[in-house]
Amino acid sequence: MAKPITVTVITGSATRPSRTLGLASVVTGRLHAEGFVVHVLHVRDLPAEALLHARFDDPQIKTAVALVADADGIVVASPVYKAAYSGVLKSFLDLLPQFGLRGKTVLPLLTGGSIAHVLALDYALRPVLQSLDPRLVVSGLFVLDKLIELGEGGVVKLDSEIAPRLEAITKTFIDAIERLPAASEVPGN
Amino acid sequence: MAKPITVTVITGSATRPSRTLGLASVVTGRLHAEGFVVHVLHVRDLPAEALLHARFDDPQIKTAVALVADADGIVVASPVYKAAYSGVLKSFLDLLPQFGLRGKTVLPLLTGGSIAHVLALDYALRPVLQSLDPRLVVSGLFVLDKLIELGEGGVVKLDSEIAPRLEAITKTFIDAIERLPAASEVPGN
Amino acid sequence: MAKPITVTVITGSATRPSRTLGLASVVTGRLHAEGFVVHVLHVRDLPAEALLHARFDDPQIKTAVALVADADGIVVASPVYKAAYSGVLKSFLDLLPQFGLRGKTVLPLLTGGSIAHVLALDYALRPVLQSLDPRLVVSGLFVLDKLIELGEGGVVKLDSEIAPRLEAITKTFIDAIERLPAASEVPGN
Amino acid sequence: MAKPITVTVITGSATRPSRTLGLASVVTGRLHAEGFVVHVLHVRDLPAEALLHARFDDPQIKTAVALVADADGIVVASPVYKAAYSGVLKSFLDLLPQFGLRGKTVLPLLTGGSIAHVLALDYALRPVLQSLDPRLVVSGLFVLDKLIELGEGGVVKLDSEIAPRLEAITKTFIDAIERLPAASEVPGN
Repeated sequence: MAKPITVTVITGSATRPSRTLGLASVVTGRLHAEGFVVHVLHVRDLPAEALLHARFDDPQIKTAVALVADADGIVVASPVYKAAYSGVLKSFLDLLPQFGLRGKTVLPLLTGGSIAHVLALDYALRPVLQSLDPRLVVSGLFVLDKLIELGEGGVVKLDSEIAPRLEAITKTFIDAIERLPAASEVPGN
Repeated sequence: MAKPITVTVITGSATRPSRTLGLASVVTGRLHAEGFVVHVLHVRDLPAEALLHARFDDPQIKTAVALVADADGIVVASPVYKAAYSGVLKSFLDLLPQFGLRGKTVLPLLTGGSIAHVLALDYALRPVLQSLDPRLVVSGLFVLDKLIELGEGGVVKLDSEIAPRLEAITKTFIDAIERLPAASEVPGN
Repeated sequence: MAKPITVTVITGSATRPSRTLGLASVVTGRLHAEGFVVHVLHVRDLPAEALLHARFDDPQIKTAVALVADADGIVVASPVYKAAYSGVLKSFLDLLPQFGLRGKTVLPLLTGGSIAHVLALDYALRPVLQSLDPRLVVSGLFVLDKLIELGEGGVVKLDSEIAPRLEAITKTFIDAIERLPAASEVPGN
Repeated sequence: MAKPITVTVITGSATRPSRTLGLASVVTGRLHAEGFVVHVLHVRDLPAEALLHARFDDPQIKTAVALVADADGIVVASPVYKAAYSGVLKSFLDLLPQFGLRGKTVLPLLTGGSIAHVLALDYALRPVLQSLDPRLVVSGLFVLDKLIELGEGGVVKLDSEIAPRLEAITKTFIDAIERLPAASEVPGN
């Protein structure tokens, strides 16, 4: 039997409840429906001091880093703070090995209160992800907070304008994981 | 008979001879070998005033823009000038429609004299390409000038350090064009 | 008698009429009123082929480059095209020497049709200007096209929302030129 | 008697000892010698969970945020991790008010192991600082780790190549604080 495809979803919101987590949960549901094994990693739930002091040997940090290392695909979801991804998210990415996304397909997602922050996706988040040497970072999505409705019991409702775009982008992500052969890795570097 | 895959290679060097063109020619050769139909577009050879005055109705500009519109894959190759892609390259990208890379797979390449410019690929060139709404921009390559040797009669020799990395990156580009279905397009936007 | 302060205003619009030029003309008027000697350099009016072929010895290019070299302050004004400054503007910046803004104070201005492009000022234009080793790049301004009204005979009217912000930013630029001593230059580099 | 000029130095290293802290201490010494009141804020020493959970009401966070609010000048020093500033640094910047650097003059400093990261200063750190609406961000400095020698008892020795450049840049920072009038603030926004 073939090894199932695994995806780790990393979220970088500093607060709860969070529209970023809501958006991530929609993608998580979609990936589950595809038959993927999905792990969700809320950086905010990791031991804070271990994160900020770069304690690579902390057991929970080790587990989290392994969840990234073992995944075929990575979803990175963060709110925009100060014209970029959150410090919470970056604190975790900083603990990954230099080429910690090698061989992986990555889907970047940002949420924000104003369309004025939309370029943070490609000017701030994407270059950091590329520095980790992923196989592929697919086109991501910036979603306005007001298009994500957080309901009772964790129910999330996306505006009808954004839902099909998220679906299309997630589909490209799934296709890329499933169809691009591992053989096309960059050697050496 | 299936329509052959077409790739347009856009180069943005302001001078001749050019290591950027040398690098692009290696990739062009590789794509030919794959059976692709390849068109090469040296922006410097387009009518300069039409470019800088945004004359969309100039016949050569129209032909060049159509070569991009009709391609499945796009290779963008530029030298690094002033910590970014060249103005020559950008002058042409500025003439493309707002979503002028929609549905296309893109391979970005930069050349430069110092490793200090390597981040220009992901912080400067990639965000501009992403703004054109491509289906996918694969991981690109920054190549040091000194690793590209320009010989007699247009012969180009890549250093043994960089050749396998270029091959791997080109292979990912080819795989992405061939294996990712057009169905995963982002609608609406 | 003291040498008067000189400022060169560089504009990078590909079309005419242009809101970018309108914005630049307001700043030019303000600098004149301050008693500065102001030169205006519309890149689009330079010989196009000399620009795109990097012909440093073209007489008009030489004059334009000298206007930058001789100025105390530089205003750079460009429309946002494809999530960045224009290729027209960059074509000219590419012709400046490596440290072509050394010792100079710089004011960056962008115009654009959507607030979604506002981050292009600090993520795209400013890093290129910084690479030219200016003494100082002051905070700039992104101005929505609709806030710039182009009237008869070159009259430009700024929306009342943006006019005081432009005034404040221009004032900082003027203060920086007048009050910061040349002695604080970075040596060597 | 005039109110003395105050500067707050923010460091974002995740580890100790740290070349970033070494570099910051040299600047701190220089500012002391100028007669400034200098506060040093090592983000790593703040309560980690309060930082990552955005607890604005934590007493130590409140004190730290006030140290920024009350300063005339801000020095921001971070190592480069993953092609950008550290998550530690960003976690703190995320807690500042939207225009938390308004009216302040800012000096950005980065340290890194390879010259390949030099553009992170202007493409990653500076846009985040600009988003906080400072009066001025002066030209900063990227310093290679190997040029910073950490000796016994906190003694820091800078390579003779970098020391005069740091001095010149610090001098510009000092001049900007002392000579630019508060009157040139941007109103409204």
